[in-house]
Amino acid sequence: MPISIIPIHMEKDVNTNDDLIELILSSINKERQKLHDNDILVITHKIISKAEGRLIPLNNIRSSKRARSIAIRHDKDPRIVEQILRESKRIVKIEHNIIIVETKHGFVCANAGVDQSNINSNSVLSLPLNPDISATKIRVKIKRRIGRKIAVIITDTFGRPFREGQVNVAIGVSGLKPIIDYRGLRDTFGKELKVTEIAIADEIASAAELVMNKFSLIPIAIIRGFIYKNKNGSAKELIRKRKNDLFR
Amino acid sequence: MPISIIPIHMEKDVNTNDDLIELILSSINKERQKLHDNDILVITHKIISKAEGRLIPLNNIRSSKRARSIAIRHDKDPRIVEQILRESKRIVKIEHNIIIVETKHGFVCANAGVDQSNINSNSVLSLPLNPDISATKIRVKIKRRIGRKIAVIITDTFGRPFREGQVNVAIGVSGLKPIIDYRGLRDTFGKELKVTEIAIADEIASAAELVMNKFSLIPIAIIRGFIYKNKNGSAKELIRKRKNDLFR
Repeated sequence: MPISIIPIHMEKDVNTNDDLIELILSSINKERQKLHDNDILVITHKIISKAEGRLIPLNNIRSSKRARSIAIRHDKDPRIVEQILRESKRIVKIEHNIIIVETKHGFVCANAGVDQSNINSNSVLSLPLNPDISATKIRVKIKRRIGRKIAVIITDTFGRPFREGQVNVAIGVSGLKPIIDYRGLRDTFGKELKVTEIAIADEIASAAELVMNKFSLIPIAIIRGFIYKNKNGSAKELIRKRKNDLFR
Repeated sequence: MPISIIPIHMEKDVNTNDDLIELILSSINKERQKLHDNDILVITHKIISKAEGRLIPLNNIRSSKRARSIAIRHDKDPRIVEQILRESKRIVKIEHNIIIVETKHGFVCANAGVDQSNINSNSVLSLPLNPDISATKIRVKIKRRIGRKIAVIITDTFGRPFREGQVNVAIGVSGLKPIIDYRGLRDTFGKELKVTEIAIADEIASAAELVMNKFSLIPIAIIRGFIYKNKNGSAKELIRKRKNDLFR
């Protein structure tokens, strides 16, 4: 059976304390779409971060000495560096004016996900404080309002080592196991599969990005027809532990 | 418009010198599908590698001293290590019994893509020698046989630093620009986008993997409805140069 990736426009920009569920459902409605059981709702973190008040005016950020020192050396706005440091557990690498950090969630990415694009003010947007919880809230509220049992994936676009270009990945997951573990099972020739774990939540995030054009307001996609385990899952399962990481 | 990901079964195992185009087209036919103009045909490298004679019996591989030395230290079959070394430009890292190399193509991945799963013999399968050319041959031959103008992406599943689980990525591309470059353009609020380059070929590869279940023989997916630039492209554009890589 084919899988569908259905784009959902959202005309309105999201503001702090907006009723996000209402906005999501009415946007789906306007596309003449309906959520089905087992649909996966993929949402870019930006609208969630905005609703959760993670948009911070640069003028409200007082930069620390450390932030200013990094900012001067790497030609950056010290207030943005300050916000990056506040979102980070540690700096992994600073080079070519790119600040790679481990965020408080554990994600390794540039600038701790702190972002200035698609923002209608002189502000910066940070990732949700706990994207798994944000995803769960959306999943549970949708179940309550319209009775549909869905999974929710919250995404951001991350760069990666070795390969050019960014890809969309899962930073929050609810109602779906983010990794399929084929280890110990047998391939089509009866041979044991040794190391195949597939990060389906990241692949679903990437699939959704294909309809999320950066210039039209498409922050949401519905993935329909993908068979998955309707179990509790967490984006934390996608984070490699430092001690198991060959490149940290 | 929604994008569709259409799985294509292939019942027959592929052997060296099989007419791959015939196999692909008859498999699509059996699914009662047809290729449309602008479809993207995503193909796992395994069937291409097999058709190109890249399946090598282990007994035909004579291991070098270097391969044997690595094999002993890391508890591996010296013949497999030999094949990995033959496919590699250099070793990037060996740790936790994982050999990360830069392949002759330039891909950074485990074991140079040399693989023993889904193979019906005591052999190893290597990546196509030039996956871009393999993709182009398929694209051109399909145009010639059925008149459809499509793009072709050849894939493999790669692990990645920082995140658990493997994802499907593009190792060969024809008829499509693998990266969309948004830099210099403006976001929905008129602000200049600074660093957004999206690796759509990898995202398309990941989307296709969602229908490529490891236990049923689904080596092909058709991606339909994705708007792309019908230009020449190469998977080499996805390879970050060593000098620009923060993690090599």
